[in-house]
Amino acid sequence: MNAPLKIGIAGLGTVGVGVFRLLVEHAAGFISDRSQRPVVVAAVSSRDKGKCRGIDISKVRWHDNPVALADDEDVDVVVELMGGSEGVAFDLIRKALENGKHVVTANKALLALRSVEILELLKKSKGTLSCEAAVAGGVPIIKGIREGLAANKISAVYGILNGTCNFILSEMRSTGCDFDDVLKEAQVKGYAEADPSFDIDGIDSGHKLSILAGLAFGCVPDFSSVHIRGISNISPIDIEFAEDLGYRVKLLGIARRTEKGIEQSVEPCLVPESAPIASVDGTLNAVYVDGDYVGNVLFTGEGAGGEPTASAVVADIIDVARGRVLPFLGMASSKAEILKPADINERIGSYFLRLIMLDQMGVLADVSAILRDCCVSIESVLQRGHSFGQPVPVILISHEMSEGGMLKAVKLISKLKSVVKSPHLMRIETFGTIY
Amino acid sequence: MNAPLKIGIAGLGTVGVGVFRLLVEHAAGFISDRSQRPVVVAAVSSRDKGKCRGIDISKVRWHDNPVALADDEDVDVVVELMGGSEGVAFDLIRKALENGKHVVTANKALLALRSVEILELLKKSKGTLSCEAAVAGGVPIIKGIREGLAANKISAVYGILNGTCNFILSEMRSTGCDFDDVLKEAQVKGYAEADPSFDIDGIDSGHKLSILAGLAFGCVPDFSSVHIRGISNISPIDIEFAEDLGYRVKLLGIARRTEKGIEQSVEPCLVPESAPIASVDGTLNAVYVDGDYVGNVLFTGEGAGGEPTASAVVADIIDVARGRVLPFLGMASSKAEILKPADINERIGSYFLRLIMLDQMGVLADVSAILRDCCVSIESVLQRGHSFGQPVPVILISHEMSEGGMLKAVKLISKLKSVVKSPHLMRIETFGTIY
Repeated sequence: MNAPLKIGIAGLGTVGVGVFRLLVEHAAGFISDRSQRPVVVAAVSSRDKGKCRGIDISKVRWHDNPVALADDEDVDVVVELMGGSEGVAFDLIRKALENGKHVVTANKALLALRSVEILELLKKSKGTLSCEAAVAGGVPIIKGIREGLAANKISAVYGILNGTCNFILSEMRSTGCDFDDVLKEAQVKGYAEADPSFDIDGIDSGHKLSILAGLAFGCVPDFSSVHIRGISNISPIDIEFAEDLGYRVKLLGIARRTEKGIEQSVEPCLVPESAPIASVDGTLNAVYVDGDYVGNVLFTGEGAGGEPTASAVVADIIDVARGRVLPFLGMASSKAEILKPADINERIGSYFLRLIMLDQMGVLADVSAILRDCCVSIESVLQRGHSFGQPVPVILISHEMSEGGMLKAVKLISKLKSVVKSPHLMRIETFGTIY
Repeated sequence: MNAPLKIGIAGLGTVGVGVFRLLVEHAAGFISDRSQRPVVVAAVSSRDKGKCRGIDISKVRWHDNPVALADDEDVDVVVELMGGSEGVAFDLIRKALENGKHVVTANKALLALRSVEILELLKKSKGTLSCEAAVAGGVPIIKGIREGLAANKISAVYGILNGTCNFILSEMRSTGCDFDDVLKEAQVKGYAEADPSFDIDGIDSGHKLSILAGLAFGCVPDFSSVHIRGISNISPIDIEFAEDLGYRVKLLGIARRTEKGIEQSVEPCLVPESAPIASVDGTLNAVYVDGDYVGNVLFTGEGAGGEPTASAVVADIIDVARGRVLPFLGMASSKAEILKPADINERIGSYFLRLIMLDQMGVLADVSAILRDCCVSIESVLQRGHSFGQPVPVILISHEMSEGGMLKAVKLISKLKSVVKSPHLMRIETFGTIY
């Protein structure tokens, strides 16, 4: 048997405790068989040493300062589970790589926002960085792209990347309740944070999407060019009308390689209800990969939670133990290209536009004139219920067109006095070749 | 740049040609980036040298005898794409491993039927054996289990493993046509072989299932204990009644680790229409893995065809090029356990039983008496249309019970004179904890 691999865990929250417990439970069994060596937790660091976590940390070294794990000579792999793109998390990862240690992290924000620095550190380090847990929790999508689909030129990767948002949208559909009420329910159930903006505004999905795009296209993850719309403006009316039209509303992250550059967006989309991704509900995540040889492959599973995320973290640890860890983006860091973002205004698609308008003479004529002037061709108009002079919802479905034209029209329409709430625009995503 | 990895391909059918083309198309590009060395096709062997295949093989060495690839000193990896568990395919793999070469194969029959010999060869060889393409075509399920879910104790793996059968069942449902007519259509479209028995009798799914079970449970693949039922007895009536009850009919391979041993079966099952796997239609494959930490993960994609299968073969080749290839079953061959098969008669489930009975006095009383004597408790009975003295279909849905009791009842019922066709039994599979 080879020498044991010694693990140092920074951060004993839900995921850290899950990793600790998984390693204790299975290390002597199949993990050592699969790793061909023992794997042991040698040291930990977290905020409060005395906190009750349901695990026995008395037999491992404790460091008050997590960065000390990087200098601990009896640690081979630093597992960073603190989160945050600034401060100690980055300091720990930098120091660990500088010291030639392997890093396993679930920190999507850090990888998305500081990818250039991370790649520079990796170029000079003898250590490696693995991040299966950073995207889609337990779903092995990083290895799926990097190893499973390594033979493909990938043209697109997209999916449901945030369980909180997927839970909220699924609940809004099944109960007909408002966004705010469902958000509160999600908070009570522990599916949403006290400050939920990071999730519901699409930032978290954007971080994950930029990492997936980096892997899929062999480029430096570029969060700054992800075009992001959140879900807080979605009303039960939108979901109801979408359903009448044969669609479900899902927050999708979409990255496409086009002739004009990389298109990256996170936004609520209407997806056909017959699409397999339409029935991915609750806290589940799902990721599609479109490769030139393999076609479309879909990966579905739990995208968060201590145990599923621990599964991903420990899979990376086993890779290190086996001596089989791959570079961060599947190729030498120096090979990662900087790809030009495509102009989102030139993106082609059809759109769902919900207006709340006063039901009075000439109103639809004003809207129609704006649409005509902006070259928006309408496929269908839906209106339900009306009482003269009162606000009513009107849904417009456009033909395929450039997003720029639609955004211009929406801006003008929102200035009409008869339009009483901000118009709500959603893309209709039919996944190109899939259907 | 490291030395090139030299590939020898045995078998230039659809998959072999796909692999050749993929390597020519991408080898100079991302494949060498991901492999960190060039990958070149050095030699090939197939039946007919002069056959037009749309690829230029004039610049690679030709061997009339595929086994010669194993002795070709300028070949590092032997890619076996001939198929068949006997004869040259096995000779080639044995010789290649004896010579310390790496083997990449799509040959599920060989791995399922001769797993003991393969594991013995691997124990003594410096070479390795990779088989991503042997199960579910382009879907990276082997690496998904072996690497992506390596941190889990897996309790079950199941799914749709044969595209031919899935196409036939999907078409029967959407068109209402008979099995024989849809089979002919599948043959015309190239989705079914001239002799389709290997697919429709469930043998091919059984081979794949035993490999998945080997990987998931760390045991020697044991095809001989897979309990197999095919799809040729399914009638449009079964599909229609199932649908009325809220189910779809799918040919599933199911492997479970139970306290009584390993349960392995391939059989048409009724699955709830709300289950994501119920909407996996056409030639698609889908595999669920149930792990203790990750929960349920579902992988979906094209399970056959030259290009998707080539994607899987070349992913294995890239693993070899990277120097990262894992053992066949994810751990040392000597660690593979021989696990006891569970007695299928003790399996618990509820069942769908279709009888074609003469509509005459006392018939249902005879059936009911048999069911009572065999302790079969019936949840519901469905009968549609009747004309006295003529055969009518009757559907019985049982409560949960042992399969042995049900099989005994079916045997007795089939002897009744009023039962005019063989009864057709299908398991109702609700996937335990998933729903």
